[in-house]
Amino acid sequence: MSTSLRQRIFDELDSLILIDPHTHINALSPASTTLADILGYHYYTELAHSAGMPKDRIEEPGLDPKEKVQRLIANLGPIENTVQYSWLIEMVQVFFGFPDEQLTLDNWESLYDTAAEKMAAPDWADQVLAASKLESVFLTNDFDDPLEGFDTKRYIPCLRTDDLVFHLAKPEVRERLQRATDTQVVDAATLRTAIGKLFDHFVAHGARACAISLPPDFAPAKVDTSVGIVNASVATALNKLLQQGNSASDNTRRVVANFVFWTLAEFCAEHRLPFDLMIGVNRGVYAEGVFQGQDLYDSRVSLIQYRELFNAFPQVTFPISVLASVTNQELASYAWIFPNVVTHGHWWYSNTPTFIEHDAAARLEAVPRTKQIGYYSDMYKRILAKILAERYVVDRSWSEQRAIDLGRQILRGNVDRVFYTKT
Amino acid sequence: MSTSLRQRIFDELDSLILIDPHTHINALSPASTTLADILGYHYYTELAHSAGMPKDRIEEPGLDPKEKVQRLIANLGPIENTVQYSWLIEMVQVFFGFPDEQLTLDNWESLYDTAAEKMAAPDWADQVLAASKLESVFLTNDFDDPLEGFDTKRYIPCLRTDDLVFHLAKPEVRERLQRATDTQVVDAATLRTAIGKLFDHFVAHGARACAISLPPDFAPAKVDTSVGIVNASVATALNKLLQQGNSASDNTRRVVANFVFWTLAEFCAEHRLPFDLMIGVNRGVYAEGVFQGQDLYDSRVSLIQYRELFNAFPQVTFPISVLASVTNQELASYAWIFPNVVTHGHWWYSNTPTFIEHDAAARLEAVPRTKQIGYYSDMYKRILAKILAERYVVDRSWSEQRAIDLGRQILRGNVDRVFYTKT
Amino acid sequence: MSTSLRQRIFDELDSLILIDPHTHINALSPASTTLADILGYHYYTELAHSAGMPKDRIEEPGLDPKEKVQRLIANLGPIENTVQYSWLIEMVQVFFGFPDEQLTLDNWESLYDTAAEKMAAPDWADQVLAASKLESVFLTNDFDDPLEGFDTKRYIPCLRTDDLVFHLAKPEVRERLQRATDTQVVDAATLRTAIGKLFDHFVAHGARACAISLPPDFAPAKVDTSVGIVNASVATALNKLLQQGNSASDNTRRVVANFVFWTLAEFCAEHRLPFDLMIGVNRGVYAEGVFQGQDLYDSRVSLIQYRELFNAFPQVTFPISVLASVTNQELASYAWIFPNVVTHGHWWYSNTPTFIEHDAAARLEAVPRTKQIGYYSDMYKRILAKILAERYVVDRSWSEQRAIDLGRQILRGNVDRVFYTKT
Repeated sequence: MSTSLRQRIFDELDSLILIDPHTHINALSPASTTLADILGYHYYTELAHSAGMPKDRIEEPGLDPKEKVQRLIANLGPIENTVQYSWLIEMVQVFFGFPDEQLTLDNWESLYDTAAEKMAAPDWADQVLAASKLESVFLTNDFDDPLEGFDTKRYIPCLRTDDLVFHLAKPEVRERLQRATDTQVVDAATLRTAIGKLFDHFVAHGARACAISLPPDFAPAKVDTSVGIVNASVATALNKLLQQGNSASDNTRRVVANFVFWTLAEFCAEHRLPFDLMIGVNRGVYAEGVFQGQDLYDSRVSLIQYRELFNAFPQVTFPISVLASVTNQELASYAWIFPNVVTHGHWWYSNTPTFIEHDAAARLEAVPRTKQIGYYSDMYKRILAKILAERYVVDRSWSEQRAIDLGRQILRGNVDRVFYTKT
Repeated sequence: MSTSLRQRIFDELDSLILIDPHTHINALSPASTTLADILGYHYYTELAHSAGMPKDRIEEPGLDPKEKVQRLIANLGPIENTVQYSWLIEMVQVFFGFPDEQLTLDNWESLYDTAAEKMAAPDWADQVLAASKLESVFLTNDFDDPLEGFDTKRYIPCLRTDDLVFHLAKPEVRERLQRATDTQVVDAATLRTAIGKLFDHFVAHGARACAISLPPDFAPAKVDTSVGIVNASVATALNKLLQQGNSASDNTRRVVANFVFWTLAEFCAEHRLPFDLMIGVNRGVYAEGVFQGQDLYDSRVSLIQYRELFNAFPQVTFPISVLASVTNQELASYAWIFPNVVTHGHWWYSNTPTFIEHDAAARLEAVPRTKQIGYYSDMYKRILAKILAERYVVDRSWSEQRAIDLGRQILRGNVDRVFYTKT
Repeated sequence: MSTSLRQRIFDELDSLILIDPHTHINALSPASTTLADILGYHYYTELAHSAGMPKDRIEEPGLDPKEKVQRLIANLGPIENTVQYSWLIEMVQVFFGFPDEQLTLDNWESLYDTAAEKMAAPDWADQVLAASKLESVFLTNDFDDPLEGFDTKRYIPCLRTDDLVFHLAKPEVRERLQRATDTQVVDAATLRTAIGKLFDHFVAHGARACAISLPPDFAPAKVDTSVGIVNASVATALNKLLQQGNSASDNTRRVVANFVFWTLAEFCAEHRLPFDLMIGVNRGVYAEGVFQGQDLYDSRVSLIQYRELFNAFPQVTFPISVLASVTNQELASYAWIFPNVVTHGHWWYSNTPTFIEHDAAARLEAVPRTKQIGYYSDMYKRILAKILAERYVVDRSWSEQRAIDLGRQILRGNVDRVFYTKT
């Protein structure tokens, strides 16, 4: 297969204006202000730490950003092989005209200063979006985010619900919920009311999705809330959790988590909001790790755990991400069978080229083209172009244009269809 | 590697006359009569449904075949990317001279009529086998199939036993068993007698295999039936199941399922019949799915669950298919170690190019060449040719002829050896 | 990508002098004396047996080596496709000038005689190491190995601990421990003392690692042994095990196994010795298999089972091998996050080209380059060269030299760093 075919398809895909349906951008301060914001991202700090850099060198309180960058640069040698490092180099080459292939103690400082200068431009955030060919990005908003002070057409609210499902035992979470909804939660009915108010608030501010990350052992079970009747075990568990707070038992938490989760799905149905499920993460496995570099997983998870959910909510679209590549075949198969299951991106530990290529190819072959949401990254576009070139143009004799159209739908069309079309 | 090498090997493999060791053909009506029989296959209906086509549009009672085809064609756009769609296009190109690359509302009707005309030929079934270069095909026969009215040398009986193992609680299954064997099942001894008569019947009619599909949580356990003594727990469970029928408990069913399964293995040993195990499917996961489009799986299954079985029946060959690619390495390893474990095809959700290539290559490298049964499909032959070209001719400097011989053995020789050689 | 690029990188990697950090060589008799020693290795006997050769033809007591080789040669036809067979052919080509591509009853005898003659040279073992470009090799020593009579700089002691952890119930194991340490084990304190003496002995003789293979269900749990206090349940279990020996219950064995394992980790910490974990094997699954050809696995294992261990011993480096490729992503992720987790080779059933290529590429992309230990084999070097050529030189525009440097670090540098640098 000619490399030029791959390149031509890539160039077409790369010219598209996209929407990134999953970011952790802070809409009130969307852009980085120094290189420390980029090098401080967990992909770099955790790898530097894994390679031997002590945590306290990275997270020293009051550390000056420039000093932090210098310290990290001094420790990047051992991670030059990683794909994350290659993203960093590409990024600084594109945005700051960095001329080299490696970032070292000999060339970092002028880059730091150039970057700081460029980032100081008042329209820097807009420059970044424009250069990235991004029309808008989805946020990851705390449930009590006021969603004010930014353009919600460009920075799309997304209701992130981990705290509600997994941390309601914490008094501070319940306090935040009370403040956000002006509702005191005393039982299942008031909890439901409060959650309903969150949805009203988010939908009124243009939210396009509800989202949550889930541990491998989570298995939602149907909760019968018909005619306002709440299951007795839910009522009991919720009562205990409200009384006992942080000392509530695992079982109590599990029952409440399931009730909250099921209630979220019901409101997604009511508001026709897609419910993004990010399945498989164990939090805090390496407790002494750096910020956001403590989570890992148990790859023994199955979508069969979501069987009741998918059957109970045919009207809710579930864009699903899985943490481990070994779960990808199940994801492809469940999306092949269930109309409401959609594949969504390549998440975290599966976001490296070997896994993306294997996983994306398997999805393209077996999941309807309307039900696959790609991933916003140059690396992904290159891999997608490779798959389209090899497996469609060469192996199946598709025309280049037909392959490009398929790529466009995966990269952009399905974001529009899934998140912007109310059914 | 030259593409022409791949093509030359493919051409040689494609010229072979094969036996398909696993089909769902109805021997009394082996060929399709309209395109509705093809487009009505679950691969197409379930994908169209997954992409949004309501089930009742597909399964409307009394629906005219031509109308059904038109409706499905109108909904195939979203699945054009899938490998299943490419099989459809290749099929209608080869068999009906369809000239296009896509099947749409603009070109379907003449294809429908052409197909209907060709399919009306009295020797259509034979034409299909000849064009497919198939000498014979294995059937999937219900245990009470009379096996009459067809050529059992061409349509090879295969005793499918899911109903006996997993649905004996249903009164209708027991009635079918009684009618088929003229034996009333009242205890373990009579159940064993009835099963023995089924084997006599099938073997007398040229059956070449016993087969079953198994859920991921099935783990056969040794049942001691020596000297006619039946384990007390089996007797108790069977008695309950006969009394309680559909209301029998899961545990009761499990004990009986295991007894029946073990008994099947004993009769396979007695008759020297291979026992095809298709491991890993959960039935009815999506209850509202279309016909045969409701089954999925939990990929957390291990062949360690079959440890006792493989050890207890060294004289029975077990051709094994696994549903998920993540189980393929175990399959290759177990076939590498156990003389009676043979790899068998690429099943269902693993029957797509990405998985076949990864799985077939792993088997070829580690399992004796005499113990691998390939898969009947053009796609498989192409992938096999690719692996032989890249990994044998190029990487290992094999001659083309030697690679072709290996391919021939995988495609044809081992079917003969495993199913036609009584040891 | 040009094949010549791959070849150039391979040639550079192949010129390196390496240390093999995992072998089963007997230092007192390091080299084979006849072809029977090579063909009698389990890779060949188990495959020949799997393909139909009866075990008693291979393991007949008193069988003459030449006769054994002849018998095996007669049964190698069915395994010619396997990668193991290709290693055999390469080996006899390189070491004994074997001119053919297949080893048959027509050409084996002269090879046998040539080999026997060459192997009889007094410096044969040194010739093999020199031709293999090996500076030294790690051994797999029983805990009671006297470690005398060989050059421990060339044959590096490695304390293998399976017997201590999993077989302490056997009286003969405890007797060996007593003889080796002159310590009678009567409780946790004396057991700890005995283990400490083993470490002293091994470290004094230049041991560079402690090692163990672990079944899939093993999950080490923290044992509090601070201030000499031993958990009561450990004391009870150990007492039972010492009393009951081989009749001790599974639970008793599990508690003791965990105590011994945790104690080993403590001594590794004290002596700054890496602790090689080989995770995932079930022993004796096929009890009738040939010698060393009886073990298989359950691929449902997760590194989350080692969470407490990795957190509790930040000062111990854990070079980790996993048996199944489906665990490789977890291994890469855990090595990406935990500073003390290092990836180690491609073990046993994952030691075939398809799995190595997928697994090695995934590690290279995501694990710091200082934390990956490659694998000593020509096959591995070829695959590594392919990955470096395709994914670094071509995809990332690395210079050839930079790619070669990365390969050198994986093949050699990290063995030095992990096993020879005391932190």
